[in-house]
Amino acid sequence: MPLNPNASIEITAYHWVPEFAQGLVRDLRARWALEEAGLDYRVRLLDVQAKPAGYVREQPFEQVPCLSDGKVSIFESGAIVQYIGEQSETLLPRDPQGKYRAIQWSYAALNSVEPAVQHRTLLDIFYADQEWARLRKPSADEFARLKLKRVSDWLGDKQYLEGDRFTIGDLMMITVLRLGAKAGLLESTPNLPLYVQRGEKRPAFQQALADQLAAFREHEPQGEAA
Amino acid sequence: MPLNPNASIEITAYHWVPEFAQGLVRDLRARWALEEAGLDYRVRLLDVQAKPAGYVREQPFEQVPCLSDGKVSIFESGAIVQYIGEQSETLLPRDPQGKYRAIQWSYAALNSVEPAVQHRTLLDIFYADQEWARLRKPSADEFARLKLKRVSDWLGDKQYLEGDRFTIGDLMMITVLRLGAKAGLLESTPNLPLYVQRGEKRPAFQQALADQLAAFREHEPQGEAA
Repeated sequence: MPLNPNASIEITAYHWVPEFAQGLVRDLRARWALEEAGLDYRVRLLDVQAKPAGYVREQPFEQVPCLSDGKVSIFESGAIVQYIGEQSETLLPRDPQGKYRAIQWSYAALNSVEPAVQHRTLLDIFYADQEWARLRKPSADEFARLKLKRVSDWLGDKQYLEGDRFTIGDLMMITVLRLGAKAGLLESTPNLPLYVQRGEKRPAFQQALADQLAAFREHEPQGEAA
Repeated sequence: MPLNPNASIEITAYHWVPEFAQGLVRDLRARWALEEAGLDYRVRLLDVQAKPAGYVREQPFEQVPCLSDGKVSIFESGAIVQYIGEQSETLLPRDPQGKYRAIQWSYAALNSVEPAVQHRTLLDIFYADQEWARLRKPSADEFARLKLKRVSDWLGDKQYLEGDRFTIGDLMMITVLRLGAKAGLLESTPNLPLYVQRGEKRPAFQQALADQLAAFREHEPQGEAA
């Protein structure tokens, strides 16, 4: 049970976010990695609409998560998950090829896949009333599906991206694919929803998700229906 | 002079690309890192319009660069530059905080900045004749500038992102900012063009750029004016 108020590892997260973002905020990646690694951590919850004045000096983009543990103070979920991976052979193999294949997939998730999927997703969430978004949607949809097909073709019938072994690359890719699933983008690549489910069934994922959602329930704004 | 046909490190690059992409293709990042680290490398040039049939098994998105050296075979410029960094204290500090601050900026360049800048850039390059792109441009411009302002505010009057020392984080961020410069997005943040120039003045950058452009000149399509 890695949530521990006395842990030396601290991450930042939001105390509450609107329903569409619940279960998707990026501290989930850090929580999941910490659970997989069996490392205790505590959470500093921030108000998403009123971040502390000094937070920009910790996180220049004023996002979550940050991680600090007395040895490092870092931001960017990819770097955080990789740092946790370096402390856990479960998540990051020790041989150079295994290690860098995992790191490569972490970068691929964040740079070759997420931008296309996220752009497509945001058209529905933030720009649904915009004429340009209506006109853009078919090509954005096509581009996101193209990237997802590349991942699907690579994965084939393997359990994980590099075979039988789950790594930080899968952790990052699965969190990106969950965004795509929510936007209905995985239907034409049936191995991807199964791959996502494989990740979501891991006890470490379930604990991480439950802990993110528990904070949101606790801080649900009064008088606003969820 | 790291270009060496007998080197054990091989990267992939394109033999030629259209003028708008010259000097921006991502093998530049690998070349720059290899030059900084003083590691010899050779280049396998691919036809951008007719990639070899098997290349998708090396690079699922059929992009460049890949790197192989007998120890690893990897893709994604972020992972490649980090791998090179691990072999060169010049590029990647050895202490955990220094190392992970650099890695964090590499991820930040690729995930927190590049998607916004690239989206804005592609509106002009690939979608200039589309009605949605004309309508989208103001908000895409604003979003890209917001991300760039965050980098500018963080950088302040420092030489590099973490102070006086150039790392893989700067290498990745400067290559992203060069995209932004080309789209005229750096005008309102005057410390960013100076930061880009600081990177571009490094001898390793100049050699890397010259070598990428030399291949394009050598393979310029006949009968098509540049």
